[in-house]
Amino acid sequence: MVSVAIMGHGVVGSGVAEILTTHKQKLFASIGEEIYIKHILDLREFPDSPLADRFTKDFNDIINDIEVRVVVEVMGGLNPAYDFVKRCLKAGKSVVTSNKELVAAHGAELLAVAKEENVNFLFEASVGGGIPIIRPMNQCLVANIVDEIAGILNGTTNFILTKMIEDGMQFEDALKLAQDLGFAERNPEADIEGHDACRKICILASLAYGKHVYPDSVHTEGITAITLDDVRYAEAFGCVIKLIGKVKRLEGNMLDIIVAPMLVPEKSQLANIDDEFNGIMVRGDCTGDVVFYGKGAGKLPTASAVVADIVDCCKHLKTRKYLYWTDGNGENIIPSEMSVTAMYVRAEGEDVIVKAEKLFGSISEIEREGAQEGVTAFVTDEMQYGEFTKKAEALEKDGVKILSKIRIGDL
Amino acid sequence: MVSVAIMGHGVVGSGVAEILTTHKQKLFASIGEEIYIKHILDLREFPDSPLADRFTKDFNDIINDIEVRVVVEVMGGLNPAYDFVKRCLKAGKSVVTSNKELVAAHGAELLAVAKEENVNFLFEASVGGGIPIIRPMNQCLVANIVDEIAGILNGTTNFILTKMIEDGMQFEDALKLAQDLGFAERNPEADIEGHDACRKICILASLAYGKHVYPDSVHTEGITAITLDDVRYAEAFGCVIKLIGKVKRLEGNMLDIIVAPMLVPEKSQLANIDDEFNGIMVRGDCTGDVVFYGKGAGKLPTASAVVADIVDCCKHLKTRKYLYWTDGNGENIIPSEMSVTAMYVRAEGEDVIVKAEKLFGSISEIEREGAQEGVTAFVTDEMQYGEFTKKAEALEKDGVKILSKIRIGDL
Repeated sequence: MVSVAIMGHGVVGSGVAEILTTHKQKLFASIGEEIYIKHILDLREFPDSPLADRFTKDFNDIINDIEVRVVVEVMGGLNPAYDFVKRCLKAGKSVVTSNKELVAAHGAELLAVAKEENVNFLFEASVGGGIPIIRPMNQCLVANIVDEIAGILNGTTNFILTKMIEDGMQFEDALKLAQDLGFAERNPEADIEGHDACRKICILASLAYGKHVYPDSVHTEGITAITLDDVRYAEAFGCVIKLIGKVKRLEGNMLDIIVAPMLVPEKSQLANIDDEFNGIMVRGDCTGDVVFYGKGAGKLPTASAVVADIVDCCKHLKTRKYLYWTDGNGENIIPSEMSVTAMYVRAEGEDVIVKAEKLFGSISEIEREGAQEGVTAFVTDEMQYGEFTKKAEALEKDGVKILSKIRIGDL
Repeated sequence: MVSVAIMGHGVVGSGVAEILTTHKQKLFASIGEEIYIKHILDLREFPDSPLADRFTKDFNDIINDIEVRVVVEVMGGLNPAYDFVKRCLKAGKSVVTSNKELVAAHGAELLAVAKEENVNFLFEASVGGGIPIIRPMNQCLVANIVDEIAGILNGTTNFILTKMIEDGMQFEDALKLAQDLGFAERNPEADIEGHDACRKICILASLAYGKHVYPDSVHTEGITAITLDDVRYAEAFGCVIKLIGKVKRLEGNMLDIIVAPMLVPEKSQLANIDDEFNGIMVRGDCTGDVVFYGKGAGKLPTASAVVADIVDCCKHLKTRKYLYWTDGNGENIIPSEMSVTAMYVRAEGEDVIVKAEKLFGSISEIEREGAQEGVTAFVTDEMQYGEFTKKAEALEKDGVKILSKIRIGDL
């Protein structure tokens, strides 16, 4: 019997307890031992839970219990999760977490502590919810040098964009619908401003390239500025707009990493990932493109990934999984101005195309039915983003008002 | 240093040797030890290979070398692969294979030998080539009861069908193109008759449900009867035709397993998997649908999956991976006549719709532009396949000539 403790009894935490209970037999068959939930840490009361006798409000009950070998952190947020997780690892307990904020902020340090204490620190659920991605990247793609990772990493924004694309809803209405359906939180900032996707691409980049990438080194844009007009021009250009988290390996092992809305060609495997689903493309030098698709959030999908990590910990109580990266200082990341991309521009004014051609050279005008009078959209060739910005400023000085600028995803 | 032997120096085998050489540093970082290719078994001569001094024609050089801890079987076929692999396992060597024919025919026995000898028998590359699928199913989805697996498991047939769908090529021309491009073998039977896809769905079903499923228990149809006319009717019905390998868990843990061409709705995640790519959907009771996509064959993609298994063996020289299923006798598989499906029918004759409605009850006629005079297509409701067959026979007795009948994939 392996005793575990679960810190947090919210959506994911209660899902973990549920799966450990309902799938007891299957899990026993896999491990050869029973997983016993000894403690559940939560400040709230759950008198009607079948596990009511396991609840505690005192972290000391967990940290001081030498029988507890695996601790599950599903509280979310940095505090007290960071402190609790670190203390558990230092006490020789393996830790499993679904907390992307924690892993993105302190992954390198916590992995180092785990290594020192010869225990495991696993976080499959932190990226892609129920989609297997951390373990496949770490194990199945180990023989590859990863050239690029690009993903739709946030279900909330993907749901909103899908409603805009398929049902012609305005951003605000789609956001409200997402909130009503429980896909978006009342304070949706972390999702719609791209911070959640940023944490996830940071974790994937750290894993793929062996050095921690911190969120503040990553240029991050959300989807709040996307309009229905942009959605329709994108369609006329054979694209859909998706919020993409992306990291690309350049020469000298430098990384080009970004989170931003992008025009994704309809033929791309990421273009058909709709609603609240996530999809992650990993381009290996041997495998070529491999894509993982599924529900990136939700109670049971996320909990099932947490439970897979618990099982792995139970099977490896005496050995460490080889999941590790060192600390990073951001020096392996190029400034976002140096990132090369083609750009979609929607603008208002007279002779926009003539003026734009003078500045950008070759451009492709996008024509669409029902376009607004005086509004023009075009796509530039690839150039460094800094160069684009300068030229866009010059275009504005020439009397053109730029309404939108969105990257073209080379996916 | 871990010494390995590679049996077979064909497409995949030479790819394995290549990756072990070119990615030495990355693999060393992952294992903490060097992987040394000590022997390569092949009857042919490779005097110009940089590994020329490692070649042998004698299996005894491998089996008798106690330094060899991991043996890679990439010869293909059953003989002598089966005998060699079994002897290696019995000699206490871990074995990695990409040989789906071997795993589908003898997986249960070889896994039992591996268990007995406390060594590993791994075969990530046997399904989906470079796409991670065996390990994610076995580890990441361990907390799920798998309700269904459905996949495009054969790149050759998917390439042929894509050419028919997108370029309007006839089957024979598309097959010839596939052969010219190296996607299809000179003797393409194993691919186009569905045997290759059958082996793969057998492996996935065995893994998911813990009992070996042998290919001869699986109703298998290929794509040789698919015509351009069917492709166009499918399109008019909002579908594409794909060769699908599928297993579904029914009540009482009975399995409904089949390989057959199916009409797949355009909105399905499997509909957009084109050309030589593979895609596999796993429906877990907790995760919902998870889809894995990538190159299902080819030298480096397949070899990279083999190398991932080698790495896993090297890390677990003293412990076993928990990859295991018991033998099966086919008693957990329902007869294909009892499988429930809606059917597409293309037929020639007078009053086909009236006659079909009398027999099948509610049907949907498919109308399409440019239809041949006297040819009609319709889709039935869901029914047991045996019931469909009887009614189809009655329809033929009523003077209707059935030209095609294809399952509707509920995917």
